[in-house]
Amino acid sequence: MGGIGAEEYAARQEAMRRLAAREGFHGVVAWSRGGSAQDRYADVHHLTGFYQHRPFVPDVPGHWRARGHAAVVLPVDAPPTPSNGHAARTGDARGTIMLITDAGDLQEPRPVARVRAAADLVDALAEQIRAWIRPGKVALIGCESMAASWWCRLRSVLPGHELVCADELAWAARRIKSPAELDLLRASGALGVAAMAAARDAAEPGVTEADVAAAAVAEIVRAGGAYYGMGISSGTRSHTFAASGPAPYSADRRLAAGDLLRIDLYGSVHGYLFELARTWVVGEEPTTEQRRLLDAVRDSVLAGIDLLRPGRTFGEVARRCQEVFERSAFAAHHGLPEAEMHGVWGHGLGLSFEPPWIIEDGPHAGERAEAGMCLALERRLAVHSVGGAGYEEDVIVTDAGPELTTTGRRSPEPAAR
Amino acid sequence: MGGIGAEEYAARQEAMRRLAAREGFHGVVAWSRGGSAQDRYADVHHLTGFYQHRPFVPDVPGHWRARGHAAVVLPVDAPPTPSNGHAARTGDARGTIMLITDAGDLQEPRPVARVRAAADLVDALAEQIRAWIRPGKVALIGCESMAASWWCRLRSVLPGHELVCADELAWAARRIKSPAELDLLRASGALGVAAMAAARDAAEPGVTEADVAAAAVAEIVRAGGAYYGMGISSGTRSHTFAASGPAPYSADRRLAAGDLLRIDLYGSVHGYLFELARTWVVGEEPTTEQRRLLDAVRDSVLAGIDLLRPGRTFGEVARRCQEVFERSAFAAHHGLPEAEMHGVWGHGLGLSFEPPWIIEDGPHAGERAEAGMCLALERRLAVHSVGGAGYEEDVIVTDAGPELTTTGRRSPEPAAR
Repeated sequence: MGGIGAEEYAARQEAMRRLAAREGFHGVVAWSRGGSAQDRYADVHHLTGFYQHRPFVPDVPGHWRARGHAAVVLPVDAPPTPSNGHAARTGDARGTIMLITDAGDLQEPRPVARVRAAADLVDALAEQIRAWIRPGKVALIGCESMAASWWCRLRSVLPGHELVCADELAWAARRIKSPAELDLLRASGALGVAAMAAARDAAEPGVTEADVAAAAVAEIVRAGGAYYGMGISSGTRSHTFAASGPAPYSADRRLAAGDLLRIDLYGSVHGYLFELARTWVVGEEPTTEQRRLLDAVRDSVLAGIDLLRPGRTFGEVARRCQEVFERSAFAAHHGLPEAEMHGVWGHGLGLSFEPPWIIEDGPHAGERAEAGMCLALERRLAVHSVGGAGYEEDVIVTDAGPELTTTGRRSPEPAAR
Repeated sequence: MGGIGAEEYAARQEAMRRLAAREGFHGVVAWSRGGSAQDRYADVHHLTGFYQHRPFVPDVPGHWRARGHAAVVLPVDAPPTPSNGHAARTGDARGTIMLITDAGDLQEPRPVARVRAAADLVDALAEQIRAWIRPGKVALIGCESMAASWWCRLRSVLPGHELVCADELAWAARRIKSPAELDLLRASGALGVAAMAAARDAAEPGVTEADVAAAAVAEIVRAGGAYYGMGISSGTRSHTFAASGPAPYSADRRLAAGDLLRIDLYGSVHGYLFELARTWVVGEEPTTEQRRLLDAVRDSVLAGIDLLRPGRTFGEVARRCQEVFERSAFAAHHGLPEAEMHGVWGHGLGLSFEPPWIIEDGPHAGERAEAGMCLALERRLAVHSVGGAGYEEDVIVTDAGPELTTTGRRSPEPAAR
C-alpha cells in the first residue's frame, strides 16, 4: 500500500465514522469501480463513431454535470423539420440524431450526428428529450454508465417520459458484426498477439512484472491502439489475477526461471476489443504439474472453439469445454475445482465485453452461433500447490468454421505463443 | 473511424430506431462514459487500500451483478460483536468494516477490512446494510460509479434505509493529506515528470503521436505506476485535446519541425494521481506567436501557484491566474478568448480529481488553502490561427510555500521541461 500502514487506514475509518455520525447518518457505504478497461463508450460510439476523451470530474452544481460522458438522442418518429431550433443553431443536418457532449473542438472524422455542446450534460439531455421525443417510454442504453444521481435528476425533470433501462436493444443491434467491424476485430486480435509477443520477449529471468507489462503496453500504444487493462501475476502469486494496488503489475517482483507467468490483456483498435490470455513458464520447460495446468486451460478452450460454428448453441459450446476440462490430466490429479469464473467459458466481443455469455446453464445457453459474431473463449484456473494459468482466444464465427483473430489461423490448433 | 463509413453509422441509427419502435419505445437515449482515467476507486481505496482489478462486465441476472466494482459498509454505531456471522465465516477480525467484492484470491497486502466475496454485489451489499446499519439515513460515497439500475435495486430491497448521495463526506475526509500520502504524491509527480521527459526525448520530427505516447506510457508502467489517460495533439490539430477515436493519439500523424506538441498526462503511484501538461515546439525554437501562447498558459499558472499558501482563498488564486493571463502578450495580440475550461484554474488531487475547484466565482472560491492540501493548477488555451497549448503543475501547500511535485522545486520558476 505504498507506505500507508494499516493504522492509517484504521484512523481514516474512524474519521469517516465520526464525520457521518455528525451529519446524522447511521452508516456509510463506499462504492467504487475498478478494472480500468471499463469506459463504457460502446453505445454512443456504435451509433455515431464518437469517443469522449476528456476525463470525468465530479459535478460542480451550477458549473457542470456529468463531464467525461456523452449522450445520444434518437427519436423513433419521423425527423423534426430542419427549422428545429437546435439544427438551426448548430448548422448541422446529419439526420435526426443529436450527440450531446462537453467537448469543444473535435478532430476529424466528425461524429455521425448533430452535435450539441453543454456543460450540464444531464439537463441538456432532458431538454433534448423534451424537444424531440413525445411523452411515453424512452429506451436508455448504456445504463451501467448512468450514475444514480443523474438518473434521479432526469426522472424528476422529465415527468412525462418514462426512462427504461433497455441494454438488450443495444446488444441485439451489435450482435452481428459488419464486414468493416470484422476487419477491425481482426486488426485488434493481431495487435493483441503482437503485444503478447512483446511481453514474452521481455520476460527474461530477473526482469520485473512491470517491465513485461511495459513491453506489451508500449506495443499497443505505438500501433495506435488503446490499452485497457491486464491481469498479470507470476511465481508464487500466479494463483491471483493481479497485484493488489491500482497497478496490476509489481515493479518489485522479479521473474525467476521456472516461474509461471500469466497475462490476461485487453485493449482495442478503433474501439474494437481484443482480449487474450497466455501463460508460460519463464526460462525453462514446464514441470509435469505445470504442463497439466497449461494443457487443461488451453485444450478445453480450443475444444469449445472447434464447436463454435453456425447452428451450435452456446450451451453446447460450454458443455464441450467443460467435458474436455473434466477429462484432463489436471482434473485426474487435482480433481475438479469449484466452478471457476462463475462457469463462464466466454462472451461476446465488439465495442465491449458483452452478451452472449457462454455458460452451460446461462441465459444464452439456448441461443445459436451465427456467422458474423465475435466471441472470446477463455478459462482461468488456479490451484495453490501449482499456481495459476489463463488461456483465451478471440474467434469470429464464419460459415467456413471458427476464425481465430488471436492466432491468425482458421483451425484451433494450439498457438505457439 | 477505422474504415467504418458514415453510411454504416446511418444504417445503425435506422436499425436502432426500428428496434426501439418495435418494442414500443418513443425514442432511444444512449449514454456513454469516456476519458479512460476514470475508474472511481478513491472511496473504497481510501478506507481500505483495496483496488478491484477485474474488468466490469454487464450484469447477467441470477449469475452476477456489478462485477468490477467494490463496496464498503461502515456502521456508525459501536461494532457488532465478534460472533457476527460474517466475521465468523471469514475468520477476519479487522474491525467493523466490511469490503464486498467479486474477488477470490487477493495478493498481499490485504485490504484493511473484513472481506466478503459475492457474485451479486448489489444484493450482498443490501444484506450487509440490513445486518450492520440500523434503519434510517445511510451516506453513499462514490455515487458517480453507482449505476442507476443498482441504485434502484438497493432502494427497492432496503425500504427501511434511506440512501443519500454524500460525496461531500469523502471529500472532507480526503482534503488534507497525511505525510504518507504526501510522499506518494511526491513520487507520483516525479514519475509524471519522468514520463513527460521520455515523451520529449521521443518527439523527433518524423515520429508519430503514438510513438511519443508509447514512450511516456512505457515509462509509467515500467516504474510500477498506472497510466490513466492523456490528451495529445500536434501541429494543425493542436487546438484540439485529442484524436477523435478511442485512442487519444494518432498513429498516422507524423511530427514536423515547428509543430506545437501538447500533452496532458495523468496516472498514479499506488493510486495517488499526477496530472501534468506541457507544450513545446518540435525540433525548432518557437515563433513569436507560439512563444506568446506558451508564455501565457505557463506564466498564469505559475502566478497562481506562487499565491497558493495557507490562508489564501481559492478565489484569490483564480483571480491572480486570470490577471496575469489578461496582461499577457498573447491577450494583447489576440484578445481574451471566451472562458476556457469553464473558468477552472485547477482542482484538488489525491486518489481522484476532486474539490476544491479553483474557479473565481466557483463554490470553493471562499475556502482557504491549508498546509497538507495537494492541488493541480492548469490552463489549456487554443486559438485557430496559432494552435493550442496546455500547462499544468501539481502543488503541495506547505507552511514554507508551494512545493511543486512536478518540478521538484519549492519556488514556481518555469520548469525546463
